[in-house]
Amino acid sequence: MPGNAKLPKESPLFWPAKLRGTTLKVLDETQIPEKLEYIPVTSTAEAVRVIKQMKTRAFGQFLVVLNTFLLEVRKSDNLSDKALLQKLKRTTEQLNNSRPTFPFSEVTSIVIRWAEDAVAHGKDVRRAVVQGINGYLAGVREQRLFRVQRIAQLLESGDSVLTHCNVSGELAMAASMAQQEGKELHFFATETRPYMQGARLTSWELQRLGADVTLIADNAVGSVMSDGLVNKVIVGSDRSCANGDFANKVGTYQIAVLANEFGIPFYVLTQPSKKIAAGKDIPIEIRNASELLTFYKKKIVAGVVQGFYPGFDVVPHELVTDTIAIKVS
Amino acid sequence: MPGNAKLPKESPLFWPAKLRGTTLKVLDETQIPEKLEYIPVTSTAEAVRVIKQMKTRAFGQFLVVLNTFLLEVRKSDNLSDKALLQKLKRTTEQLNNSRPTFPFSEVTSIVIRWAEDAVAHGKDVRRAVVQGINGYLAGVREQRLFRVQRIAQLLESGDSVLTHCNVSGELAMAASMAQQEGKELHFFATETRPYMQGARLTSWELQRLGADVTLIADNAVGSVMSDGLVNKVIVGSDRSCANGDFANKVGTYQIAVLANEFGIPFYVLTQPSKKIAAGKDIPIEIRNASELLTFYKKKIVAGVVQGFYPGFDVVPHELVTDTIAIKVS
Repeated sequence: MPGNAKLPKESPLFWPAKLRGTTLKVLDETQIPEKLEYIPVTSTAEAVRVIKQMKTRAFGQFLVVLNTFLLEVRKSDNLSDKALLQKLKRTTEQLNNSRPTFPFSEVTSIVIRWAEDAVAHGKDVRRAVVQGINGYLAGVREQRLFRVQRIAQLLESGDSVLTHCNVSGELAMAASMAQQEGKELHFFATETRPYMQGARLTSWELQRLGADVTLIADNAVGSVMSDGLVNKVIVGSDRSCANGDFANKVGTYQIAVLANEFGIPFYVLTQPSKKIAAGKDIPIEIRNASELLTFYKKKIVAGVVQGFYPGFDVVPHELVTDTIAIKVS
Repeated sequence: MPGNAKLPKESPLFWPAKLRGTTLKVLDETQIPEKLEYIPVTSTAEAVRVIKQMKTRAFGQFLVVLNTFLLEVRKSDNLSDKALLQKLKRTTEQLNNSRPTFPFSEVTSIVIRWAEDAVAHGKDVRRAVVQGINGYLAGVREQRLFRVQRIAQLLESGDSVLTHCNVSGELAMAASMAQQEGKELHFFATETRPYMQGARLTSWELQRLGADVTLIADNAVGSVMSDGLVNKVIVGSDRSCANGDFANKVGTYQIAVLANEFGIPFYVLTQPSKKIAAGKDIPIEIRNASELLTFYKKKIVAGVVQGFYPGFDVVPHELVTDTIAIKVS
């Protein structure tokens, strides 16, 4: 944490995967808010499964990816450096293919570069990878705590902030910090159908850290904005482009259009990257329609009804008031 | 039906309340799509209950209101004309107070005027009310079938139409008519959280009458529009104003803003009224938060989370491309 600012109270969603021995404990976000449970992951295949099944998401995916390399290293005491490198490359391939919108390869390629450099220079691959990842994660943690502080500074007494989906602990922690400074705040969380991250995760962690939060249907964004009930929008991002466009959970785009319509400042937390030029180049994951057509295992339609579930949408940079960035690569 | 046009196949949602003797059978829309069941209503109090609990909605409410008068008349063989008038006034009061956004009084006041005129001119109140309501309903039925025909004419081969909430049979019947004329059509139905009218009612009746329908989350409207997957929007309305503003299920307003953003024609089915000047004068019903915070009886949040559920929002006339009107009063 830069300076001598007070550390905020931590949300479980801020750091949702922890390596213990040869088991990676991954927070099962699908069980929240009913249970705070961690899924034991002991192999790359299991890591891919928790990502594909969206047991973890957003920053959790990033943590799972990096920790899976640490896990595989810890399980490979008997391998030569070259064999370990091959193993890590197989891990990379499996992870990269798990979901299309999140830029797994941007992270996995760094790990492979460390391993390859070590092999090329006759150094210890294990040490290179472990030190690299641990240093990297420590840096990310520091930067995310710094971003929490910046969000807290952005929040002003009297604000009524609308957020969509979930920003993995940061907004709730910033709210907690700002309230400790005496700021009076209110939050609107959208439900975020079909996966309900707003209802299950965001409203839960905000109230858990003492914030005043109201849930609305995704349909009510235009209504609360036109009634003057919102004065700031803060959302996260799953992927950013060189030109400032970004992808986030589906629904973010229409919230940005509405914020623009009403002159409400729209802020986004980003991990800037130059690897994709513009939003149109981001591959959008189309998830299985069954995830839309059922709700808590109950079928919500009857007869021959198709479902279309784009997981993300793209917000053009023109609609963004300001970005609060973290550099992860 | 005007001219010699073929009658469309009827959707159960087109005429969801039927009087049989002294029982009004009201389609239980909350059971659709699982069951096609009718709730027996035998008193004004029971009628108010099915309206408040949203067992019926939109056009169904209108039918329940008028049929409740017929029901009370049929149960009042022994009353004098004046006593019957007093009874109908009590019925009026109970119905008017059931839900704020739907203009019950615009309909109930007509019935009371018929009854009062009959008393004033020494005529049979029973006959005046029964003939008045039956004639009125026959006229509404004719006009609604005419509107179905107009919607069918509006639909062009190749159209991909987005709709929100449910327009009580008319869109599905229009789709059926248009398809019989050889037009190829596709429909997107929004889920319409929190009450899921799009998932439960609209997608069900569209596919039931042979239309090709895809369900999307309310969050995906901006996404499908920006991807060029929609070329028309058709929605209903719960209440219209003299200046063309109208109220409809919450979420309609943001869809109108998005349609405008993308230059997609936005059509609304209205029941024009001069009784309210502009949208700002429409009282918006705020429904109980528990209807938002639970889903199929499952609580979707934990801890101290409030819910805010405005049932409707208002679309300003500037965002409307054209209206397809029916005159009900």
